[in-house]
Amino acid sequence: MTLIDVRADLKYEVRIATVFLFQIAAARTDHQQVIWEQLTMEPNLSVETYQVGLEGNQLHRILVQPCELQVSYQGNVELAPEIHRSAFVGESNASEMPAEVLTYLNPSRYCESDLLARFSFEEFGQMPRGFSRVQAICDWVSEHLDYTSGSTNSSTTAADVLLQRTGVCRDYAHLAITLCRGVGIPARYVAGYAVGLQPPDFHGFMEAFLGGQWYLFDPTKMVPVSGLVRIGVGRDAADVSFATLTGDALLIEKTVWANDSDNAGPPASAGGEPPAVSLA
Amino acid sequence: MTLIDVRADLKYEVRIATVFLFQIAAARTDHQQVIWEQLTMEPNLSVETYQVGLEGNQLHRILVQPCELQVSYQGNVELAPEIHRSAFVGESNASEMPAEVLTYLNPSRYCESDLLARFSFEEFGQMPRGFSRVQAICDWVSEHLDYTSGSTNSSTTAADVLLQRTGVCRDYAHLAITLCRGVGIPARYVAGYAVGLQPPDFHGFMEAFLGGQWYLFDPTKMVPVSGLVRIGVGRDAADVSFATLTGDALLIEKTVWANDSDNAGPPASAGGEPPAVSLA
Amino acid sequence: MTLIDVRADLKYEVRIATVFLFQIAAARTDHQQVIWEQLTMEPNLSVETYQVGLEGNQLHRILVQPCELQVSYQGNVELAPEIHRSAFVGESNASEMPAEVLTYLNPSRYCESDLLARFSFEEFGQMPRGFSRVQAICDWVSEHLDYTSGSTNSSTTAADVLLQRTGVCRDYAHLAITLCRGVGIPARYVAGYAVGLQPPDFHGFMEAFLGGQWYLFDPTKMVPVSGLVRIGVGRDAADVSFATLTGDALLIEKTVWANDSDNAGPPASAGGEPPAVSLA
Amino acid sequence: MTLIDVRADLKYEVRIATVFLFQIAAARTDHQQVIWEQLTMEPNLSVETYQVGLEGNQLHRILVQPCELQVSYQGNVELAPEIHRSAFVGESNASEMPAEVLTYLNPSRYCESDLLARFSFEEFGQMPRGFSRVQAICDWVSEHLDYTSGSTNSSTTAADVLLQRTGVCRDYAHLAITLCRGVGIPARYVAGYAVGLQPPDFHGFMEAFLGGQWYLFDPTKMVPVSGLVRIGVGRDAADVSFATLTGDALLIEKTVWANDSDNAGPPASAGGEPPAVSLA
Repeated sequence: MTLIDVRADLKYEVRIATVFLFQIAAARTDHQQVIWEQLTMEPNLSVETYQVGLEGNQLHRILVQPCELQVSYQGNVELAPEIHRSAFVGESNASEMPAEVLTYLNPSRYCESDLLARFSFEEFGQMPRGFSRVQAICDWVSEHLDYTSGSTNSSTTAADVLLQRTGVCRDYAHLAITLCRGVGIPARYVAGYAVGLQPPDFHGFMEAFLGGQWYLFDPTKMVPVSGLVRIGVGRDAADVSFATLTGDALLIEKTVWANDSDNAGPPASAGGEPPAVSLA
Repeated sequence: MTLIDVRADLKYEVRIATVFLFQIAAARTDHQQVIWEQLTMEPNLSVETYQVGLEGNQLHRILVQPCELQVSYQGNVELAPEIHRSAFVGESNASEMPAEVLTYLNPSRYCESDLLARFSFEEFGQMPRGFSRVQAICDWVSEHLDYTSGSTNSSTTAADVLLQRTGVCRDYAHLAITLCRGVGIPARYVAGYAVGLQPPDFHGFMEAFLGGQWYLFDPTKMVPVSGLVRIGVGRDAADVSFATLTGDALLIEKTVWANDSDNAGPPASAGGEPPAVSLA
Repeated sequence: MTLIDVRADLKYEVRIATVFLFQIAAARTDHQQVIWEQLTMEPNLSVETYQVGLEGNQLHRILVQPCELQVSYQGNVELAPEIHRSAFVGESNASEMPAEVLTYLNPSRYCESDLLARFSFEEFGQMPRGFSRVQAICDWVSEHLDYTSGSTNSSTTAADVLLQRTGVCRDYAHLAITLCRGVGIPARYVAGYAVGLQPPDFHGFMEAFLGGQWYLFDPTKMVPVSGLVRIGVGRDAADVSFATLTGDALLIEKTVWANDSDNAGPPASAGGEPPAVSLA
Repeated sequence: MTLIDVRADLKYEVRIATVFLFQIAAARTDHQQVIWEQLTMEPNLSVETYQVGLEGNQLHRILVQPCELQVSYQGNVELAPEIHRSAFVGESNASEMPAEVLTYLNPSRYCESDLLARFSFEEFGQMPRGFSRVQAICDWVSEHLDYTSGSTNSSTTAADVLLQRTGVCRDYAHLAITLCRGVGIPARYVAGYAVGLQPPDFHGFMEAFLGGQWYLFDPTKMVPVSGLVRIGVGRDAADVSFATLTGDALLIEKTVWANDSDNAGPPASAGGEPPAVSLA
């Protein structure tokens, strides 16, 4: 069990009446409990809160008149991940996957698994099935990409990244997700907070569906998966933007922060192999 | 009220053990009732049936050993569409849309609304908001594309189609959906049966969210929307393939068919303007 | 006749032995005479000078050891453009074009005229043939794009620009060239100096082949074509980079400048219509 | 020395007055002599013949009124390739390449060497420089692609092919060319006739610039390079279409054929290694 404090502060210059849709609150799942949270707006505004889909994504919607808007989210989150020995985590067969999981095999905006299926199959198709195959995909992504801020933009896809070989966390996740789908492993994008991320920011990572449940992976290898707090999941980053705007507003400040409040440190690894961690 | 008979016959040469996921059964919604239906397999196989998501999509999953597989679906469907005067159907504001609708504003695999947003805004951004704007988008698509069998393939996207100016029903729908999202109107893909479609086949069309509900549009203008039977909805065609295979099998025959069993004919239009028809 | 002073100063931090290929010198053509020019390097290096192709492009190649490199080019150029009444400038027929012109109908890296041919034909195919059609293409580009520094990068193509509707001079030229080729008008990219360009920089514009010769167009409409000094022509920007490097060096300063040294002002327009100006 | 008979028969249904530009005649170079050739048209038409560029490409242009057009080209070609021991063929330095060769380092329509440079550098950047590196690139292409008729179309680029991993001869050549340029080796596309090609057709292959001259490579490995007769070279297939049409005509028959008329067989390989063959 780990306790993590998270915080995001956003400041916008709102130029015309604008609808904001925020996805910055920690999700509530069986393994991730929100002990305490607070969303404050300056000026004070009425906030609608939604839960969308089956995965616990929380959205906040506000309508803002022209002003300087300050949004702060703070939370204290308890993670109680299931941790398994990765060597025992196999792949699920297409004939057994729950129907709501199947959608995560489909190609999506930034994860063109149809285009990359042959590539994926060629590189990873002959490997032993199981957790280690997803690990191999993440290793490949980590080895073949250079992490370069500013090297990609909001229209960069997994296929682009596979060719240009640079990107940021979101691109690493997109490529790994796409390669998983390419060999028949359902995979999805997770937006979240990450303890120890340098420089601090929202983080993008992924989950793969193995042995009947979703396991966490971070192809950037920048932080341990045990310090990842989930905000939302989706097919790719298109589904979990931290803010979606209808109107006209300029982001002028963003501070994001996550801290291991009880300093528990990462869970001990079982037997040398990386642990298989599930928060879903 | 209309009664429609639908039928699909598929024949596959199955080469290795293959998992099939079919989406060929008529959806059950408040306005579309399945009076009778039958799914038969030859050889006889155990079929799992799922309902996925909130929109009534029905999936059938089978595991098939090497053989020649014959799949037949027949149904009798009663459509009780809501029909409104289109002049009175306005657009919903981003501040009022139900949360589960917001996802249909996101870009998806074949509908890169992020890339086409400026184009869409430039062409349609200044038009009066409402049903007529979606109608204008469909008219534009219909006028600027040539319907050409074989001009596109399974990786063709709305951006491709906007440039090359040819496509088939699925491409028409993708482009119209993308342009709707580009001006802030949620839009989604519908796979279905269509009375009077020539040559007979599965059809692809769309729904736009207006005035608090989903309305049907067919940018190909090949058939009246009153003869459209819904199989499933999704963000784009990636979500509603009639068959998804894991394994190796070749489609060797496909016959699709829909017939207006009571010969009711299309609903009378109200006051000259096209009626606004909703089945969702 | 106009006299124009041009100047470019480039400073590089050269990290390993690097081969530079510069295209910064004014071209010598029948209508553009280089009265005086000087290329200086600091440190002093031996420079190879080439003339490539039939169009008078001049290249300078140097091999540089690690150092801080300063390159300065200055020239005084006399322009003696042919100026015709644009109303009398028709299009050439494919059956009459010189063979070396035909290559400028082919698609190229940034000008995918094959992809945009239908679009181009639809928008401009029915217009009267002649100078005015190219003018209409340039007007369309100018009206439909927003000039936004930083909105594109070195891999942005005409198709990208047509969708995203923003770009810089090079993108304006690429799109106009592509649309010309799409309706059968040979068109090519010109890199050059431009009097009055704000902010001062190298400029990218275009030439179209009409009535048996090449005429200048600047789809950005930022400067009069009478103040354009040609450095080089090519199929698109890929052929006329101001510097191509093999090695590793960082551009740390770039100052570009062009001045109408005799203050002649633009040539008088004939009869209200824009003049047809040829420097090739 | 080898004598090769080549022949191409094309039949078109010409619907409106159409300008044809054919590139089907064997090129004349220092190492490829055209002993005899004949171009016949039915109906009889006046043909213009051009030589374009420095590489000996021959074009034939005709203007045809509506009719059924039959075009036949036959030739007898003597190949006198320079054959070197590949182990002794090194790469040229950027500081020594002739200026007219440098253009073949630029990205082109189907060879986006800018996009694939990192990929190429990662895979091939650390290899020993020389003939063997180009051989390694061709081997990689041959191993990683499946030759599949109909898997690509006229807009498929090297980047597409690298992802989808299938293609035809033109795609193999485009990918190998792009990877060569990516590591700084000038490379260009060659269209030609090929002895022994199954099924018989025009062929697409490539030349790389090594040790001061152009060497032949066929990444498809379908035929020996000693049986390749050059029609034309260009940056990629966009430059050497066998027919370019302005008007409206339908190709209804195409027969292409090449035969080793003296049955000389391939030149003996020197010392086990593949010979380095140059026809340019």
